[in-house]
Amino acid sequence: MSELLTGPVEVVGTGLLGTSIGLACRRAGIDAVLHDASAEHVRTASGLGAGRPRRDDDHPQLVVVAVPPDHLGAEIVSALRRTDAVVTDVGSIKSEPLDSVGEEVPDLLVRYVGGHPMAGSERSGPLAASAALFDGRPWAVTPHDEAAAEAVALVEELARVCGAVPVLLDPREHDRAVARISHLPHLLAVLVAGRLAGAPASHLALSGQGVRDVTRVAAGDPALWQQIVTLNAEALRGPLAEVREELDALQNALADGDRDVLGELLARGVAGTEAIPGKHGGPARATRSVFVSVPDHPGELARLFADAGVADVNIEDVHIDHDPGRPVGLVELLVEEARAEHLLASLESQGWVTHR
Amino acid sequence: MSELLTGPVEVVGTGLLGTSIGLACRRAGIDAVLHDASAEHVRTASGLGAGRPRRDDDHPQLVVVAVPPDHLGAEIVSALRRTDAVVTDVGSIKSEPLDSVGEEVPDLLVRYVGGHPMAGSERSGPLAASAALFDGRPWAVTPHDEAAAEAVALVEELARVCGAVPVLLDPREHDRAVARISHLPHLLAVLVAGRLAGAPASHLALSGQGVRDVTRVAAGDPALWQQIVTLNAEALRGPLAEVREELDALQNALADGDRDVLGELLARGVAGTEAIPGKHGGPARATRSVFVSVPDHPGELARLFADAGVADVNIEDVHIDHDPGRPVGLVELLVEEARAEHLLASLESQGWVTHR
Repeated sequence: MSELLTGPVEVVGTGLLGTSIGLACRRAGIDAVLHDASAEHVRTASGLGAGRPRRDDDHPQLVVVAVPPDHLGAEIVSALRRTDAVVTDVGSIKSEPLDSVGEEVPDLLVRYVGGHPMAGSERSGPLAASAALFDGRPWAVTPHDEAAAEAVALVEELARVCGAVPVLLDPREHDRAVARISHLPHLLAVLVAGRLAGAPASHLALSGQGVRDVTRVAAGDPALWQQIVTLNAEALRGPLAEVREELDALQNALADGDRDVLGELLARGVAGTEAIPGKHGGPARATRSVFVSVPDHPGELARLFADAGVADVNIEDVHIDHDPGRPVGLVELLVEEARAEHLLASLESQGWVTHR
Repeated sequence: MSELLTGPVEVVGTGLLGTSIGLACRRAGIDAVLHDASAEHVRTASGLGAGRPRRDDDHPQLVVVAVPPDHLGAEIVSALRRTDAVVTDVGSIKSEPLDSVGEEVPDLLVRYVGGHPMAGSERSGPLAASAALFDGRPWAVTPHDEAAAEAVALVEELARVCGAVPVLLDPREHDRAVARISHLPHLLAVLVAGRLAGAPASHLALSGQGVRDVTRVAAGDPALWQQIVTLNAEALRGPLAEVREELDALQNALADGDRDVLGELLARGVAGTEAIPGKHGGPARATRSVFVSVPDHPGELARLFADAGVADVNIEDVHIDHDPGRPVGLVELLVEEARAEHLLASLESQGWVTHR
């Protein structure tokens, strides 16, 4: 049990994130009380063990607002007025709710500190929740000038209770960060994917892993993303203008056959991929891909991983090749560069067809 | 041994693709002769068993030109003049070399038929080659009006000998297809990645799997991609203009807070992701993600796949979560929707922490 966070923790909005927070609190022995506009969601979350339905006489120590972006401001204000608890939220944008709280209830701002756990959102609803959703993830905690130090400490403690790693960031800096590393990639993936809707089958038949990877996130819920990008429009303006400028340069360079400009753009892209931190936050480690042909039926992947286990090499990542028409899967194992030859030799000695 | 393709097959350019074609021909018992501007590459390819160095008195049945895009036209013309063989190539663009051959040696055009195997190119050089590189892959064969039917049949047979599936496409249609499903995604991934170069560490620390997927292809060799996009500039013009137009609409909609326009753009992106054909060319099948926590050390993935094998469920794809700071890996298994619950129950009964 946390000494700082003794509960109860009130969760407003029992979707994926809210229910997962309830489950994580209960796992830590902290009382959790649940509220949602949908009584059915509360029943489901409660049935999963995420806490009990909220009562009028509850006195939460901390309220966590986990509602869609459009409703964040109103629900945070309501929680600040309704209780004397510290209030936080888990929304993807931090400036906009902070501004509405500052306008509505400036004197209560001392009890509000925003947060944003960097956890998956491709699924939704309480049934997708898990106490382990936040384990080891960064959880942005975004204090502002008026926030009480005790309120900041309590929100950081919630992140830790949920198994996450609190990362302190200014609210506006947070919004600029997610514009760059989440919202902009999403929007450009959408523009690429948009070119595929209605494309001739003969074009789509040549699709490889590249276009699948680039467009994967574009499958996200339009209703949610519409809210996110609208509310983060200000932080998105700069990066979108930069993309627009480079797209101009790209179109001109292609029209003029100016290879120097193209080369510079492409090289900047390579540098960008190298700037992304490595697994587990460490510096990007040199990895090498080991390619293995694997028959496409149950059990074969298990056999491959078991045989790779014999080589005692840690596999950093796996890709399974999806190219159409391929009866045998091509599996790419990413391993530490220095261990790749050892893994190849070991797999070959066990009868696997590797591709050097 | 193929009845149609009896050899010798001459390979010009013993990089990844050329050497792999030599290996595939040798596997089929067909004589392969090798040439490259780098004598060392020929020695390496030959040492790997991809064929023997070309001699002046060789009389190839088929010449395969596998050189960088910029040199395709000249090498195809040279092969047509030097031999009386059918000549093909494996370049990513098909109109531009066809046009230069038509200008230089119009009377020899009857013996030239372009090709483009859709095989991976993230590695390069003869050491990365494999006889199995093309197994089950689409191999675009792009006849033109002047091509002899026997020449087309021979190039299709080469694709089959290499284990690939020949797909007949008009050269200009081919270029439009790859502009849309390969070159445009590459260029927009480069623009997203360009925003990460020089970004503050506090921004990059929030990177999740999304930005990694969107930008992965942007790590490709700038020297090669500079040639590809320059030579396919004409086919890229339309899709780039469409992206430019939608980017305008996106920026205006964000400035005006016009959610309807944003919603339409986002919905078109979702439709695009759904248009990509499923694994092995079949219709996209409904899959569901099963999330499992896996300790990050050797052997644990093997144990997971072995336990999944017990459930007799075919795993369509795997993602390993790379989020920084996560001591336990989150593994996403994509399986047929109807089998997901069975797999979850089976894994849970074997002690795995799954995330519903």
